[in-house]
Amino acid sequence: MTNPANKAILLLSCPDARGIVAEVSHFIFTYNGNILYSDQHTDSETDTFFMRVEWDLAGFRIAENKILAAFEPVADKFSMNWRIEFSSHIPRIAIFVSKMDHCLYDLLLRTREGELAGDIVMIVSNHNALAPVAQYFGAPFHFIPVTEAAKAAAEAKELELLREQNIDLVILARYMQVLSDTFVREFRNRIINIHHSFLPAFVGAKPYHQAFERGVKIIGATSHYVTPDLDQGPIIEQDVARISHRDAVSDLVRKGKNLEKIVLSRAVRLHLEHRILIFGNKTVVFG
Amino acid sequence: MTNPANKAILLLSCPDARGIVAEVSHFIFTYNGNILYSDQHTDSETDTFFMRVEWDLAGFRIAENKILAAFEPVADKFSMNWRIEFSSHIPRIAIFVSKMDHCLYDLLLRTREGELAGDIVMIVSNHNALAPVAQYFGAPFHFIPVTEAAKAAAEAKELELLREQNIDLVILARYMQVLSDTFVREFRNRIINIHHSFLPAFVGAKPYHQAFERGVKIIGATSHYVTPDLDQGPIIEQDVARISHRDAVSDLVRKGKNLEKIVLSRAVRLHLEHRILIFGNKTVVFG
Amino acid sequence: MTNPANKAILLLSCPDARGIVAEVSHFIFTYNGNILYSDQHTDSETDTFFMRVEWDLAGFRIAENKILAAFEPVADKFSMNWRIEFSSHIPRIAIFVSKMDHCLYDLLLRTREGELAGDIVMIVSNHNALAPVAQYFGAPFHFIPVTEAAKAAAEAKELELLREQNIDLVILARYMQVLSDTFVREFRNRIINIHHSFLPAFVGAKPYHQAFERGVKIIGATSHYVTPDLDQGPIIEQDVARISHRDAVSDLVRKGKNLEKIVLSRAVRLHLEHRILIFGNKTVVFG
Amino acid sequence: MTNPANKAILLLSCPDARGIVAEVSHFIFTYNGNILYSDQHTDSETDTFFMRVEWDLAGFRIAENKILAAFEPVADKFSMNWRIEFSSHIPRIAIFVSKMDHCLYDLLLRTREGELAGDIVMIVSNHNALAPVAQYFGAPFHFIPVTEAAKAAAEAKELELLREQNIDLVILARYMQVLSDTFVREFRNRIINIHHSFLPAFVGAKPYHQAFERGVKIIGATSHYVTPDLDQGPIIEQDVARISHRDAVSDLVRKGKNLEKIVLSRAVRLHLEHRILIFGNKTVVFG
Repeated sequence: MTNPANKAILLLSCPDARGIVAEVSHFIFTYNGNILYSDQHTDSETDTFFMRVEWDLAGFRIAENKILAAFEPVADKFSMNWRIEFSSHIPRIAIFVSKMDHCLYDLLLRTREGELAGDIVMIVSNHNALAPVAQYFGAPFHFIPVTEAAKAAAEAKELELLREQNIDLVILARYMQVLSDTFVREFRNRIINIHHSFLPAFVGAKPYHQAFERGVKIIGATSHYVTPDLDQGPIIEQDVARISHRDAVSDLVRKGKNLEKIVLSRAVRLHLEHRILIFGNKTVVFG
Repeated sequence: MTNPANKAILLLSCPDARGIVAEVSHFIFTYNGNILYSDQHTDSETDTFFMRVEWDLAGFRIAENKILAAFEPVADKFSMNWRIEFSSHIPRIAIFVSKMDHCLYDLLLRTREGELAGDIVMIVSNHNALAPVAQYFGAPFHFIPVTEAAKAAAEAKELELLREQNIDLVILARYMQVLSDTFVREFRNRIINIHHSFLPAFVGAKPYHQAFERGVKIIGATSHYVTPDLDQGPIIEQDVARISHRDAVSDLVRKGKNLEKIVLSRAVRLHLEHRILIFGNKTVVFG
Repeated sequence: MTNPANKAILLLSCPDARGIVAEVSHFIFTYNGNILYSDQHTDSETDTFFMRVEWDLAGFRIAENKILAAFEPVADKFSMNWRIEFSSHIPRIAIFVSKMDHCLYDLLLRTREGELAGDIVMIVSNHNALAPVAQYFGAPFHFIPVTEAAKAAAEAKELELLREQNIDLVILARYMQVLSDTFVREFRNRIINIHHSFLPAFVGAKPYHQAFERGVKIIGATSHYVTPDLDQGPIIEQDVARISHRDAVSDLVRKGKNLEKIVLSRAVRLHLEHRILIFGNKTVVFG
Repeated sequence: MTNPANKAILLLSCPDARGIVAEVSHFIFTYNGNILYSDQHTDSETDTFFMRVEWDLAGFRIAENKILAAFEPVADKFSMNWRIEFSSHIPRIAIFVSKMDHCLYDLLLRTREGELAGDIVMIVSNHNALAPVAQYFGAPFHFIPVTEAAKAAAEAKELELLREQNIDLVILARYMQVLSDTFVREFRNRIINIHHSFLPAFVGAKPYHQAFERGVKIIGATSHYVTPDLDQGPIIEQDVARISHRDAVSDLVRKGKNLEKIVLSRAVRLHLEHRILIFGNKTVVFG
């Protein structure tokens, strides 16, 4: 289930050109790296090339802390937008919740099972309700009430915590507060939300009620990166479930909770495994 | 595959009350009918009761043409909104198309297979492109060009044809024209459209392009009754397919065509079998 | 989410005949019952009629403990195989587990949420591993080791516990022991198992390994009633997930766990709501 | 929808080693090829490496007919099992049918639409029933009756036709005859069948009847390469549909036909685009 090998993961995008794959794979081979996985994509509208390469660092002739400098000339040659991630760094996660516990339990259990390769460093909530869950799983719980008046102060406190703990990823696991632009910008491309509808249908509040009113035959859930525009960020993952006239709003909520858990955990897993490249307002997901 | 028995199908809605099922089933039993299928639903928001009962007319002691009058007292007692359909009447269908043939072939083939219990009496098109398909299947083809200037005249001609041929159901099988309110009202609840998106997402033109731009991970198709408001009518059936960043708009179109065919034919089948009750802007579908 | 009304649920099967629905609905109406839900099915191969009727007991003119006697003449008239369940009786559940906790957590959380209308009265295990989970949820935990030599003694102890606690339903939530025929017969139609394959494919041990070896593109999970024949009992519910050549056995296990939880909880919910009729080796599920 | 560029597609498998990607991409780059698509997979059980690379031949400095020889040294170095396909060669297809037309229509229509990049050169049948369909689409139709006594003679005639017409791919589109080992071996890995069940469940005859008897809640269809062992060949694609107790065998047949068409056409598309590598009795499908 786990690969204990130290791995490097290169993610890049650049204008399409001949020789990119050759140069990248040559770089890895020259220093004795073994490519474990490689995937690429070309966006034909903008002629942009995307690539994700993962290689085994056992026997690699450049030390981890010198790989970035070594790769820089290759990146420059092709004007790459790039980063290299190392599996030796376990991403540090903060989960934001309100009162609903289904996504929280799901993330905690999957992390414990080793399905999600991250450390849940803290749970932040505007309510006290889920403190016992945090305690059971041994995760620090921070109760930070959010009132209209003191919203800025609450966010300041949250950001301080996130910085102190070097948080890499913020998961909004049915957190019922809208984050300010300041917050979102500081954690740009590092906040994942679960919205309980099939976006772009039913943006905003009470999507299950909206779905019920419209009489749709299928409901959905959408996990996306958070941007300053509500429910408009790049979509990572979606899934759906069939409903009928027999289903009351409460049934939609029940069926939707299954979707929310599964869609959110899939999105988090893809992020933690560095499989997602953001491109404009869309994602390239190397599955 | 087919049940050659003559059947009556009662569809009703009324304020919920005790004794409706008892009275309806007693009526059928009294005249020696055998109930083949019965389903019901109560909308708890409005306390409205819905029912669909299907019974075998073999041995039934009231002649087909006198059943409506015989049932009227029961209907009046509960203030029912009701109708009775007879399987002896094969619904007469007009299919409207433009240039795309995938839904048309699908409907023609399924009808020939006996999957759809209706007669395709005519194919109407604003282009000549699909005349050979109609000819191959032996269906009369009417080429009625629609120009901005002569739209009213074209519709008048279409309506005349529909009336002449006693058409029960109009299917818009990727017909690329918007029907006028007059037309829609004359065939109220008798026009089924296929929209190539997961409504209410991507209303209007070029939904696959819209889906591509938004970066969704799943596309859909929706079959609905046509009302004067574009793409806003009661939804009958929906389905979805998974896509990824690899899929260009042309791939969405290709994958979508599969959905469109399947969703439209399911909706038509449900309508032809008298399984749909319209309630406000929603449907109760007794599957 | 919950309907606090006291309800009676009649489940019956009998040779098909005219007048069954009329007589049953008349019985309910006569004593002032309000039918909340009614569904029926006729198996055309054997001419067997199945029905499920649910009615509100508020204002019903027969006391709960006299309803069975009152209905008996109707049942006799049509030679019904029947039972009446009352929503006032909350089914008492025993969950059997080994070491895997995903289904157990799922059932405990859904019960706490009110999604599953039963009481989890005990958790029985042949290992001690999941005792802390039981403790966290406040459910009595019984550690009953099962060795080849002392299997009969272990089962005797289990059966004693089940009888003492008037258990209505035994759920095998990835319990890795095969129950004896004696055990199965005592709880006939009251033991629900989750098998981690799409039955009848991959019966028996290590189905994910079997699926991997065969190179299938979709895996599944099946929930069924336990009969003396291993993995051959009446199927209640199934679901599937897509896999590819990239998925190792460990990925099949991970994806399969999602399926197992969802399929098992759906089956348990259907059982607890008295929606299942067993007919030969198949189920009629009134959804 | 179509890419008119001439492309080369290299498919290879070999023992895993460092430098394969580097060497392959260097080969393409050296001769001025632009990689359009590249995907790889490593089977960790057997340490086998799989790769598919597609490159644009515009400006490539080796003529098409000399590419194989030029690549040979690279292939030899890594002991590759390999082939190179050229998009300039349109695969030549023979479709075998009996009396059912749904898969045949589907393949003919998709080919005409440009969804399937092959030429349907002939339709072979042991019945005359579908000759008019072939005629309508302008495809040569060969009626070759198959009797128990004259089976070998019939196959000899079929093989002669296939050889004469340089057929690349044989599609069994619900062809109700079992091919001999001789036939299968001559077209090894070049015969695609559609089996109307979710293999390995319900091998052999009348799978819908078997599914109905077993009481499954989901049915499926499987497309696979034909091997001498009936329904045991490498699986290319599968899909499923939900059923219930209401569905008679005839409903399973109807729902299954949708699946058969979609699954078969997906498998054929993957084959025609050279996306499938066969490995033991399994497939690696580069989607």
